[in-house]
Amino acid sequence: MAEFFTRLNFIKLGWRFLSTSSLGRSPVHVPPASQRFYSSVIGHPSFGLLFDIDGVLVRGRTPIPAAKQCFRNLVDRDGKYKVPVVFVTNAGNCVRQTKAEQLSHLLEVEVSPDQVMLSHSPLRVFSQFHDKCVLVSGQGPILEVANNLGFQNVVTIDMLRESYPLLDVVDHHRRPKNSVPQTRDLPPIEAVILFGEPIRWETNLQLIVDVLLTNGKPGNTVTSLQYPHIPVLACNMDLLWMAEAKNPRFGHGMFLVCLESIYKKVTGRELKYEALIGKPSVVTYNYAELLIRKQAETLGWTSPVERLYAIGDNPMADIYGANLYNRYLKASRRVRAQMQAQGGGNPRQEMDEVAGPDVAMGDVGDDPLPVGCSSILVCTGVYNRDQQDLPPDPDETVTEQRIFHGHRDFRFDPSLTQPSFVVQDVREAVELVFQQESCPLD
Amino acid sequence: MAEFFTRLNFIKLGWRFLSTSSLGRSPVHVPPASQRFYSSVIGHPSFGLLFDIDGVLVRGRTPIPAAKQCFRNLVDRDGKYKVPVVFVTNAGNCVRQTKAEQLSHLLEVEVSPDQVMLSHSPLRVFSQFHDKCVLVSGQGPILEVANNLGFQNVVTIDMLRESYPLLDVVDHHRRPKNSVPQTRDLPPIEAVILFGEPIRWETNLQLIVDVLLTNGKPGNTVTSLQYPHIPVLACNMDLLWMAEAKNPRFGHGMFLVCLESIYKKVTGRELKYEALIGKPSVVTYNYAELLIRKQAETLGWTSPVERLYAIGDNPMADIYGANLYNRYLKASRRVRAQMQAQGGGNPRQEMDEVAGPDVAMGDVGDDPLPVGCSSILVCTGVYNRDQQDLPPDPDETVTEQRIFHGHRDFRFDPSLTQPSFVVQDVREAVELVFQQESCPLD
Repeated sequence: MAEFFTRLNFIKLGWRFLSTSSLGRSPVHVPPASQRFYSSVIGHPSFGLLFDIDGVLVRGRTPIPAAKQCFRNLVDRDGKYKVPVVFVTNAGNCVRQTKAEQLSHLLEVEVSPDQVMLSHSPLRVFSQFHDKCVLVSGQGPILEVANNLGFQNVVTIDMLRESYPLLDVVDHHRRPKNSVPQTRDLPPIEAVILFGEPIRWETNLQLIVDVLLTNGKPGNTVTSLQYPHIPVLACNMDLLWMAEAKNPRFGHGMFLVCLESIYKKVTGRELKYEALIGKPSVVTYNYAELLIRKQAETLGWTSPVERLYAIGDNPMADIYGANLYNRYLKASRRVRAQMQAQGGGNPRQEMDEVAGPDVAMGDVGDDPLPVGCSSILVCTGVYNRDQQDLPPDPDETVTEQRIFHGHRDFRFDPSLTQPSFVVQDVREAVELVFQQESCPLD
Repeated sequence: MAEFFTRLNFIKLGWRFLSTSSLGRSPVHVPPASQRFYSSVIGHPSFGLLFDIDGVLVRGRTPIPAAKQCFRNLVDRDGKYKVPVVFVTNAGNCVRQTKAEQLSHLLEVEVSPDQVMLSHSPLRVFSQFHDKCVLVSGQGPILEVANNLGFQNVVTIDMLRESYPLLDVVDHHRRPKNSVPQTRDLPPIEAVILFGEPIRWETNLQLIVDVLLTNGKPGNTVTSLQYPHIPVLACNMDLLWMAEAKNPRFGHGMFLVCLESIYKKVTGRELKYEALIGKPSVVTYNYAELLIRKQAETLGWTSPVERLYAIGDNPMADIYGANLYNRYLKASRRVRAQMQAQGGGNPRQEMDEVAGPDVAMGDVGDDPLPVGCSSILVCTGVYNRDQQDLPPDPDETVTEQRIFHGHRDFRFDPSLTQPSFVVQDVREAVELVFQQESCPLD
């Protein structure tokens, strides 16, 4: 019984997974490696900041006071940022412009869309799909989101319903009334992109499965199983999330559970993902680092960003993701060394083992990568230092992860939930970073 | 590949499961046991007819010509039926009155609501739940359906949404706009009844899981897992069904797959059903027999109905169900014999093994049960004698059943897909029955 209690309250009790030794101590001592001060050497700092939004800068519609204060210090008199700043959220089903405007209003500093990444933002680098005919699933301005990301040949679920009016018949009111309506064939669907939780799940589940079973031609009779099926890319795998309700609500991960279960039941095979995108996936942090690099260029920085600091409220998404990315960066450096030494082994394989199958490998080249990524946990959201509960149990945490944030295809390592630092709020977090970097904040 | 082809076309190719020996022969010879002629002995026939609707009497909205002809012969000059007739369909989400009116118009004979049973009709005998506070899931006149069945304390999903406005937030437009709305507590839900496939699956899945996790009080915080959860009763477990589209459509069984998968993912436990109702479940045929008995009374029959003939187009629902019920009747007679002999053993256990956990046992008393139930397969619907495909493979059929009509909790026996008779249409079926019973039809 206690096990279930810990499960369902896990989002609120994420801190439970921190080792007791790290509790009560804030900030934790910084690793010696990042105690150098670069300003005098290269004329500017060499670090960047990744901010989670919900639970760090805002609660629902209410801004967290500390956020406004610390952002006042993060920009100079001209409103120019002192260091590269990127906002990283698992939210989707909206466009970056909207989120940037909300943040500008909230923080009273100018936030550009280029500083915002949503769960689907990394799809911009999946250019191999941009000219393909893709079916998109989600809600909100889904077509606009897809076009903004570079997809030029997009089919929505509603377009599919109009072209194949006999497919969506779960709702009795949607069934053909009298005569059987005509079917208008669309070009074959070449990939399916799941942006976020849709509405009318029965419609999306039926039509997506139709597309997968017919190899992208839902007007055809199924004559054989097309397996592996056409590529499926999913953004935001959060199973549950905390809203105003007392208990967690269904997230996009729950829709994925339904889709996976139905596909398995009908075909006897596993649904496969070409990519799983969003925190804690490495591909998300890879893309955030790309945005940080661009921010550094706009600041006129001439040398690479050496260190990243990810500030978040959720040990299982923000901390786990930042630590996983940090591990990826370390492996990446070993890979580059091996490549330069023309040594044996399989560098890509080593990185795959760290990053999982969903990581974009495009950056395993000459681009300078940061040395590391530190994780900073704040206490203004999901994680609450005052909450007391059961001590961490490795066996249990595996279950927790599987049940709460983990996806079927995600391997879980409890050690990655340990943050580099624990502080009260985002203001303390930023002050800590500038102190660690021996860099003046005001 | 071939395995999948057979799976997805199974509804259309159900006849494949008939032994080749029974193909081409129509009608099959009748068992000697039912070759007696009762009219001269007790003044009237002693058999009743169970008609499936879709694929037997109607295709979509189009009546099957043979249906009108044979029903003309089934009633006398005054429109009075010559034998008890009951219509047994897995359809739900509507009331018997509506279905009866459709049939009366279609067949040009008067059909009373008492002759119609829908997938949920057997809930009328689950009186132990009629005074409990039940949450109902489905679409159409769901509240009216529940009240007609005897449920006096019914809560719909929409009533739950209005009382607990923070629960249903998958659809962004349904989230609280500004201030957090008030919660108005409803009496605790004591059971959940799944009538048929709902619309907006995300809403029903979220709220049903909330009710199961909170022991019927979705406004409460979950503090421990209530397991076993409050009773869940499900009607119509059809996973897929054939509509106008070329490939099968999702049925209520698919919604159940989603609910089972989500419950398992969140709690780590199996969702349990108090009852699974609808063809091929025995409880459905038990209830149909009850209606046949009442029809016999209205016809003034003084002696019990000895034999039932179930006419249907789907080997996996109609034939399987009729044969399973026939096996149940045989076991029932042995049980009664044991009871009378005050012998050892556990009669109920033996019947459970035949009928599964969902059978209503109320009739294991002194009520006269029929001697047997014969299954008659017609070729005007799902089953098409002209279709040729792979020969039956017992291993494969198990998979087929699991995938197509079978439910997680249903044990499958391929031998039960073998009909007693194969005929062209419902007219031939009725003529065959009257011939077998040596009873004049016109």
